[in-house]
Formats: sequence, C-alpha cells, structure tokens
Amino acid sequence: MPEIRKDPVTGRSVIIAAERAKRPQQDSASQESLCPFCPGNEQMTPPEVFAYRDSQSSPDAPGWTVRVVPNKYPALVKEGVWSTSRRGVYESMTGLGVHEVIIESPEHVVDVAALDEKQVTAVLRVYRGRMLDLREDNRWRSILVYKNQGAPAGATLEHVHSQVIALPEAPEQLRAEIDGARKYYKANGRCLFCEMIRQNTEGGERLVAEHERWAAICPYAARFPFEIWILPKRHAPYFELSPDQDLAELAHCLRDALARLNRVLDHPPFNYLIHSHPLDGAETRHYHWHIEILPKLVQVAGFEWGSGMFINPVAPEEAARLLRHVTL
Amino acid sequence: MPEIRKDPVTGRSVIIAAERAKRPQQDSASQESLCPFCPGNEQMTPPEVFAYRDSQSSPDAPGWTVRVVPNKYPALVKEGVWSTSRRGVYESMTGLGVHEVIIESPEHVVDVAALDEKQVTAVLRVYRGRMLDLREDNRWRSILVYKNQGAPAGATLEHVHSQVIALPEAPEQLRAEIDGARKYYKANGRCLFCEMIRQNTEGGERLVAEHERWAAICPYAARFPFEIWILPKRHAPYFELSPDQDLAELAHCLRDALARLNRVLDHPPFNYLIHSHPLDGAETRHYHWHIEILPKLVQVAGFEWGSGMFINPVAPEEAARLLRHVTL
Repeated sequence: MPEIRKDPVTGRSVIIAAERAKRPQQDSASQESLCPFCPGNEQMTPPEVFAYRDSQSSPDAPGWTVRVVPNKYPALVKEGVWSTSRRGVYESMTGLGVHEVIIESPEHVVDVAALDEKQVTAVLRVYRGRMLDLREDNRWRSILVYKNQGAPAGATLEHVHSQVIALPEAPEQLRAEIDGARKYYKANGRCLFCEMIRQNTEGGERLVAEHERWAAICPYAARFPFEIWILPKRHAPYFELSPDQDLAELAHCLRDALARLNRVLDHPPFNYLIHSHPLDGAETRHYHWHIEILPKLVQVAGFEWGSGMFINPVAPEEAARLLRHVTL
Repeated sequence: MPEIRKDPVTGRSVIIAAERAKRPQQDSASQESLCPFCPGNEQMTPPEVFAYRDSQSSPDAPGWTVRVVPNKYPALVKEGVWSTSRRGVYESMTGLGVHEVIIESPEHVVDVAALDEKQVTAVLRVYRGRMLDLREDNRWRSILVYKNQGAPAGATLEHVHSQVIALPEAPEQLRAEIDGARKYYKANGRCLFCEMIRQNTEGGERLVAEHERWAAICPYAARFPFEIWILPKRHAPYFELSPDQDLAELAHCLRDALARLNRVLDHPPFNYLIHSHPLDGAETRHYHWHIEILPKLVQVAGFEWGSGMFINPVAPEEAARLLRHVTL
C-alpha cells in the first residue's frame, strides 16, 4: 500500500510507492515489437475503465481510438481504508487516489503532435471525461492530467499516452498558484492570469501564437528553456467544464504549439500538464486553468534542488520570438 | 547581464542567464584529452580566486591540490549596478551574485568518493573558506555549495568539482526549511533537526551510519530513492563555522556514505548540497545545517512538476537497510 508522507521540516508531501520500482525498462526496439499499448495487446494492461471504440467491438479488444486503463504500477491506489499515522515528528496517510493511463492512439506513434486534429480533440475530450468522472468520488480533491513524452521527460513507454492522477489533497504546486492568484485578486479585484494574457497578447514579446479562444505564451519567469503556457482567453477556473467547441480549437492550438517546438528544437522530450482548480467548492474568480508545456533540454541539478530556484539559459522573449516566427 | 525574475503567480524566483547557453557539451573521451580542470590547462579557466598550492608554484599554473575559479558561464555576476524593474505584473532584479567552481583534485578523477580522506578534508575546508570569504560581502544573503556528479545529475564536465553560488536573497527551498523549523521551535522549544537525529539514531530504521559527531540517515519523506542526509549531531546552524576537527570527521562520514551508495547502486549520478543558515543575523537556535545527497536514478516528470509532490519507489527504511548492511 502506498503512503503519503509529510516532510516534517517543509510540510512537502512525498508518495512512497514501492510497487513502482517493479516497472520494466524496455528499449525502443522491444517496445515496438511488444507494446502493451498497441491493439491486440490489450491483455497486457489492467482492464480498461473507458474507451472510445467501434460499437461492434468489445472492451479490452481492438477497435478503440482512445483507451483508458488503470496504471499497472500505480503511485496511489483506489481501494483501502483511509488512515493516518504519527510517530514523533513524522506523519503519513494511506496513499489513496487514482492513477490511470490514457492511450492516445491505436497506432504506435511516439509524438502527440503527429496525431491529427480530430484525434487530439478526442484525446482532450477523454481528459475532460476522466476528470468529470473522477470528480464524482468525493474522496478526491484535485485531479492532475500530465504527459511525459520521451525518456528524458520520464516516459517509460514510448507509445503516445498521458496519465491522470486523482489526489486526496490539492498538491503544493497548485496550492501555491491558487494562493498567489487569490492574493492578487483581493488586492486588484481581477484575475492575475487574465491580466497576464492581456499583457502578453496584442503583439507582446512573449506571445507564441494567438487563436480566437486561446493564447500560447512563454511565461515571464519560465523555469525551463522554451516553456510554453496555453491559456483560455476567457476566464475559466476548470478545464473539465470546457465546451466541445473550445476543445476542438484547443486541439488546434496545442498541436500548433507542439509543432513549433518540434521545428525549433527538433522534437525535444517534454512534459505537459493541466492545472485546473481543485474540487473544494471555494471561490474561483481568481483562478484560471491552463496547460504548461515544459521541454526537457537541461538537467535539473544541485543548485535547483538546493535553492528551489531555476536557471534558464534562454530568455522567454527569445524563445517566443523563435517559436512565433518558425515556418511550419 | 543575468536577471532574477519573480513568477507573478507563485513568487518563485528564476534566473534568466543567456550566457549559460554557450556552455560547451563535450563527450567523455574529449574531456580526458582536453580537460579545462586538469593541471597544465589552467589558462582555459578564468584566473583562480583561491588555491591550495605548493609555496613554490604560481597562481594559474600547476602545483595546486584544490583550485577555485569563477564559473566561465555564470548564472549570476559579481559586478554591476543593482536595480529592479517592474512592468505591469512582472518584477525582476539584476542577477547579482557569485558563481564559482571548486576543482577538487588535480587528478582527472570523476568520483569524489575516489579521493582519499585527506583530500576530501581539504575540499571541505575550501567549501568553508569560500563561504567565510563570501560572507564578507554584505550584498550576499545566502551561500549554496553543491555538487553535480555525472551527466544525468547535470554535470557538464566530469573532472571532480563542486560549485558555490552566493545569492542576494535566501532562496525559496532554504526559506521553507527555516520557516518550518522556526514553527516547530516555537511550538516545542527545541530544534526539529535535533529531534529527527534523536529519532533516527539509536538503532533507528532509517539510520545509514553513525559516527562520533555525525549521523547519516535516509530522511522520512525522501524525494528520491536512496536520498541521504548528513547532519552534525550537535546543534549548529552554520556549516562554515565548523572547526577543523569536525571537518576531518565529516570527510570520513561523507566518503563513507558515498562509498555505500556506490556499492549498492553501482556508482549512481548524484547531487549533493549544503544547507546552511542565511547571513541575516536572525535567531538560529531552530535551524540545523546539513548535507543532502540526492541520487539521480529516476527522471522527475510531469506529475512532479505539476504537483510539487514526488513519487519515491523505494521506502527510505529499505534504502537505509541496504546502505547500512552493505560490505565496504
């Protein structure tokens, strides 16, 4: 059973999940010949929890276009008795949560930007669907969708996929964003993210691409070279409440941003993640959901771990200029 | 000129340092034939700021045992006019600070644990000396010594070395530790780290090794598999005030901990860093300096960046058991 432990000094949460150590490491060649995410190999994963599939086809058999399965080596588990423990200065709770894998194409494609717009739209709808479904279980306070593409970005399997984790508490990084945004809202009476969008569009020097409903920008204090955020131009705290039409245009915007990264950086490994407001029913006028795309070009090293600061060798204005002007 | 930018949402600081992008990437073979840290190649680095060397020898020439030079591609620069800028929601300040490299052996050794105890003692004395020297400049509030060993841990040169950065502000990670420790001290009237040492020595299940003055433990909420902290058993807020005798025994303890990691994990890449109290003259009874050793066995991925939480697949108790019982 995994455990969520609190560091007694900083209060930082860590998931101790010994089951994860059993994850196999496969090289690229063996992955193509025996990929657990390819059609025909459905028995290699736990039974699916959701799929878009032909009405003629059966669960856990070919015929799907997007397929969701529980993570075989989960960081958190769904079933178990919730308990806490305290020994001296040390506190922990049982590692309850949900950890799923979203297989984003039946083809053995390794780059999400290689999927067509219709397929990416389907993928985004599945993200939304899983989040809406997981919201129904009131044990979960926060749901995080993220992608690891490429081994340097932490992917152990190359077949295009994302993951979703439902957590019993809002995680530190999201809380820090919400706290900062709330403070700004209280002081200024408006959403900080809306203000950032205003300051970065209209010919702004950190603008990557602007669409009808979406803006892609390099954030002012980017941690990583060529970091991109995609934000809805209209204020919205929850990704999972996005209407279909918005998701179709988001698919276009996301593919466009990733295609720009691929052109400028020759298909870099990257993570992306969706920050959506937690499910705590609190006031949400101050928080604005968004996608963060984090290319993995540099190793995070001793300075970053020791300080919590990042060193970014590429000014976001320069990254945005290159991404904006690249020929697609 | 580098810039320290604040993320308007979280307040997180990022150093934007375009000069760093020019760092060369060399493979191992070319590094051995033309290493800027080997004796005879002193002209490949900026002029040294300190060295232990033969009384017969001249600066920037062979004859040294430990040599300190400015980082050729610094994250922060020492000279410049301090200024801040604010545009809308965005704030920055000039990237003033010091960034030095400590070359830890004249031999082209790649593993600090391969240096003998006398040499490691000399290295620790140089860490102390650089910190004491940098304290003299009252522009710096915090000094961080860290090591990146191995390319996956962020080392661009393999010749054994560490780095020291002096910062104009106490960084986020250190502030979080100090705030947590202060809170505990206020509530309990004693140092949290002293309490942790008490709870982890005396046959504790997370003990790696105990020496007269030092304890090496796997922290309860370790972020990384086989993470080790080394702490002085007697309360001390500042590494740089350690007496000679303590450093000699610390060299023994540090080499011992790294040798254990090397045996159990077959020479893993790792970072280590020294957390010492900032130079702000505040009360320090609550803070306890220490070394954190962070092996780099797993990639930090989308979940960690999105949540601020870590997933550690090896329980610290299991890691400590293996490290404690290994035959050296």
